[in-house]
Amino acid sequence: MTHPILIVGGGPAGLAAAQALAGVGQKSILVEKESRLGGAPILSGYAKLVPSGEWAKDAIGGMVKRAEESPLVARELGCTVKRFSGEPGDFRAELSNGKTIDASAAILATGFTHFDSVNKPEWGFGTFPDVVTTTQVEQMISSGRGVRCPSDGRKPERVAILLCVGSRDRQIGREWCSKICCTVSANIAMEIREELPGCHVYIYYMDIRTFGLYETKYYWASQEVHKVKYIKARVAEVTSDGERLVLKAEDTLVKRPITIPFDLVVHAIGMDPNVDNKSIASVFGIALEEHGFIDKKNSYGTFGETSREGVFVAGAATGPETIDDSIGQGKAAAIAAFGLAHARSGAGVAA
Amino acid sequence: MTHPILIVGGGPAGLAAAQALAGVGQKSILVEKESRLGGAPILSGYAKLVPSGEWAKDAIGGMVKRAEESPLVARELGCTVKRFSGEPGDFRAELSNGKTIDASAAILATGFTHFDSVNKPEWGFGTFPDVVTTTQVEQMISSGRGVRCPSDGRKPERVAILLCVGSRDRQIGREWCSKICCTVSANIAMEIREELPGCHVYIYYMDIRTFGLYETKYYWASQEVHKVKYIKARVAEVTSDGERLVLKAEDTLVKRPITIPFDLVVHAIGMDPNVDNKSIASVFGIALEEHGFIDKKNSYGTFGETSREGVFVAGAATGPETIDDSIGQGKAAAIAAFGLAHARSGAGVAA
Repeated sequence: MTHPILIVGGGPAGLAAAQALAGVGQKSILVEKESRLGGAPILSGYAKLVPSGEWAKDAIGGMVKRAEESPLVARELGCTVKRFSGEPGDFRAELSNGKTIDASAAILATGFTHFDSVNKPEWGFGTFPDVVTTTQVEQMISSGRGVRCPSDGRKPERVAILLCVGSRDRQIGREWCSKICCTVSANIAMEIREELPGCHVYIYYMDIRTFGLYETKYYWASQEVHKVKYIKARVAEVTSDGERLVLKAEDTLVKRPITIPFDLVVHAIGMDPNVDNKSIASVFGIALEEHGFIDKKNSYGTFGETSREGVFVAGAATGPETIDDSIGQGKAAAIAAFGLAHARSGAGVAA
Repeated sequence: MTHPILIVGGGPAGLAAAQALAGVGQKSILVEKESRLGGAPILSGYAKLVPSGEWAKDAIGGMVKRAEESPLVARELGCTVKRFSGEPGDFRAELSNGKTIDASAAILATGFTHFDSVNKPEWGFGTFPDVVTTTQVEQMISSGRGVRCPSDGRKPERVAILLCVGSRDRQIGREWCSKICCTVSANIAMEIREELPGCHVYIYYMDIRTFGLYETKYYWASQEVHKVKYIKARVAEVTSDGERLVLKAEDTLVKRPITIPFDLVVHAIGMDPNVDNKSIASVFGIALEEHGFIDKKNSYGTFGETSREGVFVAGAATGPETIDDSIGQGKAAAIAAFGLAHARSGAGVAA
């Protein structure tokens, strides 16, 4: 008999893996450290996702519902893996809730940790209440209360979104690009313009990375349809004149300093390696890459494999990733784990 | 009994799907219009792939070899699908070689078409022999002959790589970003600098989109280790002074025209929709998106599905895509097709 497949992490990648496995009749056990499934889009209260435009609570909520309703997906919530031993086809995982699970393979879908903006103090977060993060704006939108200045609840007339907060920034040890913040910020800017048509929205950027087909839907639409203004700039600091926030930067196109007042400044926060990655690497006996994300082997023959046979990885655990690609990677890891599990069990799979 | 799964296209996405299906014991039939497998990386003679640094002929060649050696992967080369009928679980495909195939599901991994630089005539391709494409430079490197000026075979002392040729360019009806050209160009620039340490290499760009973890390996390494120079510019035209190429542009950072002589100018060509997409859409009864790529349904519950049930899609057929993500999508489509095939056959899959 084939053991179930262990999936660690109940965000988009883990849910996609569980759904794919259920679709081929394979049992899985989803271990999630939080008390509910859904990962960042649900737990952080994201609004409309890119590029679908669907609300996170519907899109990812739907994935959660399918996992919860599937008889083939067991769930262990509020729980982590403390020990992991054995061989491909016959692993054993000891959970923090005292249970022990036999598993034929494991898929790590352990995601990322949002950058904490207090680590970029000169940009005002933690000092001024009207300096917020993209996640907070997502929450304002998804709550239905709308985008407001936290200090007094007023509707902002001028909003600045600062890209690359916690990304492409060697001063704070984060050299990587977080891949999706440009597109998410363009999306948020359009949301703000739709809710508050009189509000001026500026995006401060180094490079606009709305790659692939995002270009049409976000780069062009945000400028042409929604009149969002893009400023190529190096941001110096965010201060206050007592009434409004004051954003000082150097416009790198016109080569001069610019100082503009804003009601609301939004940090487009990046994706850090999951803060638990060292512990995860230790428990599962796998390698991390130079920045602290989970290392994956080259992909041509071995997509989704880690440095340990039978332990696969998917989604933002391996580096900044989009939700769509996390889902794809979850499903790719699923078929690899499924193939390995059945090869090891000696049982055939398909006729 | 379950029919095999039809895979159309033998590039990275199609090969990955076939390999994943073979790994779970599922037969597939790979239909490829060219006379050999491998897709663009093999047929266009790519050199070292990003981000692995492996030679295409080894990396993708290895995928081809595994497909050719698998008893579960049938191949029909130099062949296209002329008619496609039936229902999920019981499709029938008529091939251009006269054969008829029964298939439980289909995966379209039909890829893209390289932009043809003659459609950007003011940038010199087709007029001056020393204006070439990234694909031609890949071929120079992979052939082992090295990067040389086609006009007289000399080693170039100054090379310009122009980004976004056939991408982000509404003048020629190509609004999308081709996603991977920035990273590929940085990689090629480093290759040239390694082979010809005295050669100056410039990259003309609008935005540098070395997203995610490519930032460290390509953006920073190309500048700091390999001394590649980046110029943010709008390229006006490529002409010749009789001896060398002359590149006229406006430097958008210093706001003035710049005219620089080069020995070799490289077009970083983008990814067009496969020229056969209208025919593919008609044969398979599926929808295309606004730019002419194959339309995919939103991904949260239905990753890799097209507008027709039982017909899946993966890789650059749906828009510009990296090789790694094409492989992931091929495997994701494989598990979805496999699940559907077995659900429809009434046979169980896993114990």
